[in-house]
Amino acid sequence: MSLFDSLFQPKRIALIGASSDEKRTTSRPQRFLQKHGFSGEILPVNPGRAEIFGIKAWKSIDDIAGCIDHAYILLNGKDAVSALAACGKRGVKAASILAGGFADAGAAGASLQDELVQIVKDTGIRLVGPNSIGTVSTDPPMALTANAAFAVDKLRTGNWGLVSQSGSLIGALLSRADARGIGFSRLISVGNEVDLKVGEIADLLVDDPKTRAILLFMETLRDGERLARAARRAHAAGKPVVAYKLGRSDIGQELARSHTGAIAGSDATFDAFCRRHGIARVSMFESLVDVPALLVDRPPSSNKGATGKRVAVATTTGGGAAMVVDNMAVAGLDIAGPPQELVDWLKPLGIAAGEGKLVDLTLAGAKPEIVSGTIERLLADDNNDAAIFVVGSSAQFNPELAVEPLLKFANSKKPFAVSLTPAAEKSLALLTAAGVPAFRHPESCAEAMALCLLRPTPQQEPKLSEPSIAARDALEAGRSSGFDERRATALFAALGVPAAKSMSVPDVRRVTAAVEEVGAPVALKILSADIAHKTEAGGVALGLPDGQTAAVAAREMEKRVTAYAPKAKLDGFLVQKMERGLAEVILGFRRDPLVGPTITVGLGGVLAEIYKDAATRLAPVDETEAMQMIGEVKGLATIRGYRNLPKGDVAALARVISAFSALAHSAFGDVSEAEINPLLVKSDGVVAVDGLVVLR
Amino acid sequence: MSLFDSLFQPKRIALIGASSDEKRTTSRPQRFLQKHGFSGEILPVNPGRAEIFGIKAWKSIDDIAGCIDHAYILLNGKDAVSALAACGKRGVKAASILAGGFADAGAAGASLQDELVQIVKDTGIRLVGPNSIGTVSTDPPMALTANAAFAVDKLRTGNWGLVSQSGSLIGALLSRADARGIGFSRLISVGNEVDLKVGEIADLLVDDPKTRAILLFMETLRDGERLARAARRAHAAGKPVVAYKLGRSDIGQELARSHTGAIAGSDATFDAFCRRHGIARVSMFESLVDVPALLVDRPPSSNKGATGKRVAVATTTGGGAAMVVDNMAVAGLDIAGPPQELVDWLKPLGIAAGEGKLVDLTLAGAKPEIVSGTIERLLADDNNDAAIFVVGSSAQFNPELAVEPLLKFANSKKPFAVSLTPAAEKSLALLTAAGVPAFRHPESCAEAMALCLLRPTPQQEPKLSEPSIAARDALEAGRSSGFDERRATALFAALGVPAAKSMSVPDVRRVTAAVEEVGAPVALKILSADIAHKTEAGGVALGLPDGQTAAVAAREMEKRVTAYAPKAKLDGFLVQKMERGLAEVILGFRRDPLVGPTITVGLGGVLAEIYKDAATRLAPVDETEAMQMIGEVKGLATIRGYRNLPKGDVAALARVISAFSALAHSAFGDVSEAEINPLLVKSDGVVAVDGLVVLR
Repeated sequence: MSLFDSLFQPKRIALIGASSDEKRTTSRPQRFLQKHGFSGEILPVNPGRAEIFGIKAWKSIDDIAGCIDHAYILLNGKDAVSALAACGKRGVKAASILAGGFADAGAAGASLQDELVQIVKDTGIRLVGPNSIGTVSTDPPMALTANAAFAVDKLRTGNWGLVSQSGSLIGALLSRADARGIGFSRLISVGNEVDLKVGEIADLLVDDPKTRAILLFMETLRDGERLARAARRAHAAGKPVVAYKLGRSDIGQELARSHTGAIAGSDATFDAFCRRHGIARVSMFESLVDVPALLVDRPPSSNKGATGKRVAVATTTGGGAAMVVDNMAVAGLDIAGPPQELVDWLKPLGIAAGEGKLVDLTLAGAKPEIVSGTIERLLADDNNDAAIFVVGSSAQFNPELAVEPLLKFANSKKPFAVSLTPAAEKSLALLTAAGVPAFRHPESCAEAMALCLLRPTPQQEPKLSEPSIAARDALEAGRSSGFDERRATALFAALGVPAAKSMSVPDVRRVTAAVEEVGAPVALKILSADIAHKTEAGGVALGLPDGQTAAVAAREMEKRVTAYAPKAKLDGFLVQKMERGLAEVILGFRRDPLVGPTITVGLGGVLAEIYKDAATRLAPVDETEAMQMIGEVKGLATIRGYRNLPKGDVAALARVISAFSALAHSAFGDVSEAEINPLLVKSDGVVAVDGLVVLR
Repeated sequence: MSLFDSLFQPKRIALIGASSDEKRTTSRPQRFLQKHGFSGEILPVNPGRAEIFGIKAWKSIDDIAGCIDHAYILLNGKDAVSALAACGKRGVKAASILAGGFADAGAAGASLQDELVQIVKDTGIRLVGPNSIGTVSTDPPMALTANAAFAVDKLRTGNWGLVSQSGSLIGALLSRADARGIGFSRLISVGNEVDLKVGEIADLLVDDPKTRAILLFMETLRDGERLARAARRAHAAGKPVVAYKLGRSDIGQELARSHTGAIAGSDATFDAFCRRHGIARVSMFESLVDVPALLVDRPPSSNKGATGKRVAVATTTGGGAAMVVDNMAVAGLDIAGPPQELVDWLKPLGIAAGEGKLVDLTLAGAKPEIVSGTIERLLADDNNDAAIFVVGSSAQFNPELAVEPLLKFANSKKPFAVSLTPAAEKSLALLTAAGVPAFRHPESCAEAMALCLLRPTPQQEPKLSEPSIAARDALEAGRSSGFDERRATALFAALGVPAAKSMSVPDVRRVTAAVEEVGAPVALKILSADIAHKTEAGGVALGLPDGQTAAVAAREMEKRVTAYAPKAKLDGFLVQKMERGLAEVILGFRRDPLVGPTITVGLGGVLAEIYKDAATRLAPVDETEAMQMIGEVKGLATIRGYRNLPKGDVAALARVISAFSALAHSAFGDVSEAEINPLLVKSDGVVAVDGLVVLR
């Protein structure tokens, strides 16, 4: 039996620690399996019972003859560990563990969790959890879960597959989706992800014919590479991957950490991850179930220009439509006016559609042929990229007037969505059942349309060539003697980052000669691999006009730095030609524990720090992507061509960003962080005037 | 009969143009009045009918004997105008007009609307609309409306009064509120607001005992002063005013304009208006009905410090609570951990509440006494300012476990809210009926709590003293000779804004002497009231080191400016001492067409323009409020005390902001705009180095 089948379509399920007491959580998996008509064999294991809920119970799994496709372990702590070991020994393909109290609960739990890891390794059993509230398929039904939400009378079938790091949320999403007529194909709570993680399960769902969209509720990211692969395969299969992730705030990140033992990554790096791999990240909880309908089988176009984001809007409620439009515009979409043909067609009906961008049918009243004729003409128009119909009160009382005529646009070539302004559950269900993406909040409608039209396609990671000998030598020099500024800059130069002309001298006496060599005015900096922040240590002097002044400054500097860091080994001074740029950029490289190598471009200087004005991507990036990053840093508008300001050499900047991002190569695997601050952008070229490398 | 009664509690209602055809919109008001049990007298007016829906119809309102409390005019265009004139003549207290096609429909409609204005003026009748879909009271019932949403079987009563500039939205909000157990006291669609506007109606609702919160759906603001007064009176009465306003995006503003003939103001000035007058502005549509419950009878405290924003959170769903917390933290709230007493109390139950800030009761299961004991202890704790309970699946299936124990906290002294993670309409209705603020979206729960704790109290407009003689003289000089930089700066100086030392000279020959007088280095600027943007005209030269260089520069400047603006009258040069500051500030004053005088403080220079980093308030402001504005401009962090950077004199800056805002005085009524750019902030004091005044 395949891993997919043993998780989602097992035929024989052992419930280890099953309870006959309805009040106990551990009784639920059996009750829910039975309630929702599981057609396979249920094998309760409980040494104290001969029978549970009408089914023969077993003393131990070893008493059960034949193959066990899946075991749900409902015991706690040590007992759960022993049960998993027994399952592994017995050759059970996959097991889930309900209990928490492992890595989610401090040091003692973590060591118990290590035992689980070892069993998985030794026996080859695949494990969901611990801290997994279960796994559910709807068709055929298999509700192997302790989540109370599955006490519902009827399990709605559907095409969304949900993978959640929070167990309680699968119940919440089930109820919310059901309330608006949406069902799931599969739901799985992955808990602490000791073995099976979000990425691998998403990967399984890509090949599941019952699943057309993959939904993720995430607190952290534990298998980025695997999820990346799954997202790319899903994209190729026309299945959107839609993610809600906690941790937009620092407190949220902290909570995610304490909640299930997760280390939440920074929000910007997760965004970079989603962008690279084509994952649609939603910001509203309910969008997670609302948004997929508009994205299914609509992979984003890879060629985004000025067009590609124009949405035409027709409505029977001016105020309701204005809300959708307002939210869409804030999200970066444009509104397309009606085509002339539609204007002409509506005129005899007393509707002046040409006066605004919105096609407001209110005056004509909601009539099926007008609604239908309007949408047809909007969808046929080449001057928009998508259409939305916003329905008013007719959605509530007369679906036949303004909602039923929309059903035939379910498979429109162009994205088409319906937003309902009143509470109109029946219309919502009608549209959903017909396959028309429908929304009950103007906010989620706008969010969905923005994701539909603006989300990028997954991007291929640029191929990195082998590092040059010069780069390897520079790395080696830093490894053996420590990365002071000079050696850091040398490494960057070997990668292709131009550096300011400079000379290093071992002591104060050589400073004057060095100034003559590089040319005044100069910057003088202390050289020491032990000092990461030279400015704070008093180790930087700028704009020194001549050799003599520089020598005096060097003596003072030595005193200051020694006082600041008595134990630091000083390697002399760097004498550097003063450079001026049109803009100061900060360029950073970091190996993120969750998503891997990342690169960040921001505006340099103190204001940039205050505004947090930066763009982050997974590294490496090619020059095209580097150019997009430059475009995202607002403060760099000054050098992109702003009013009368002189333009900076953004092409050279893009080349250097791309070159610097080659630190992602595995040959530099022990470089955990690197930074150029500032990198000066001139009208011709760029030049680095400071550098930092941190080894792991 | 009072205006309030004639709008919301009329006893005799004429329906002018009532229809007996159920399919026609104009039949609805009578049908809805009858359907929802209006106990007064309905007087249909229709010359072609003797009876409509079982009620005697009249040929003309002049045939009706006795007083008419309210007339709803259901005719179009000219006929509506005539009907209003007849009502006015007849002494009808107040009328509403259903039809659009007035100022909302171009020039022809605007002139029809002018006729309505004249009738109101001449006869004293009060008018709702045109373009008003009606007015509704729920208790006793009076559904005088053509909005289809009132076809519902039962009109839920409640305590929210809704005033909407969009007619269709009153139906949408009715249905949405009803779906979650919330009813309204009054609903009114104000349409084009020819006479009665949002502000005056809100003001009436302040005195309505059935209304405990006033909800506004706004597209624009037509009577700012009246609304301000209403908001202040509402605040004093413990009735929150909650507003949703279109126009966060430029397109949204444009739409609002075309939609009902409104001119939408800039979003920042509306925010400033809300802030000054204590209006809670929501960003999510559904928040409009969700949020008020938490604000009713909880006027914000006027003394906000480091405390006042700490929210304690307990839950039965870790993931659900994390979403609420994440959204609250993004909104600027802090999370308070549990008190020691609660930690100790929960410990024997196996709940380690001390480890994180969230009190997660999941492990104990939802038990009434634990839920109740937890909330009691959180509400009694002095180290938080509010508490939230986030309920998981028990809300859906076992309200008695985790929801019923919450009902007794309905009138807690401290703000207390409940957020439901699954779809759980019954629990929502249960909580709502008991008066416990309850939310079905983590986003709106966070928005409500942020508004509850962070919204400012209405602030008294600072009293402005009479302008000094010097200020009046400076204004007069500008009025008679035009406001060039010198006269603008003189006016600002008279208000109390220090200016850089300078001297104006009539021609090039006097420049050298002037440099000696003010002291080199200097800035040289062309003087001309005809040139608003000197830099673009080539009329500014900075950092001139001596008199001779300045004289050469002046000659060149004269040529450049003459070539740029051949018709401009040149009044010589301004020779100004070069000043240096720690930060450049831009200070702007503007009379906004909607909200009146406003003042804006931003970071000067090109980056500020790019980041749109500014704070806006209604003018005038006192020094305390000016200090808050300075605190809101992110880029001014550099002078508020940042790392090792020298501090700027923010107290002096606050004084100058306040002084400059005195332009709001009516004596300066013809000053439509004024600007100081830049205002340099030094370590001691501030100095203006450029100024601009625009007269109406």
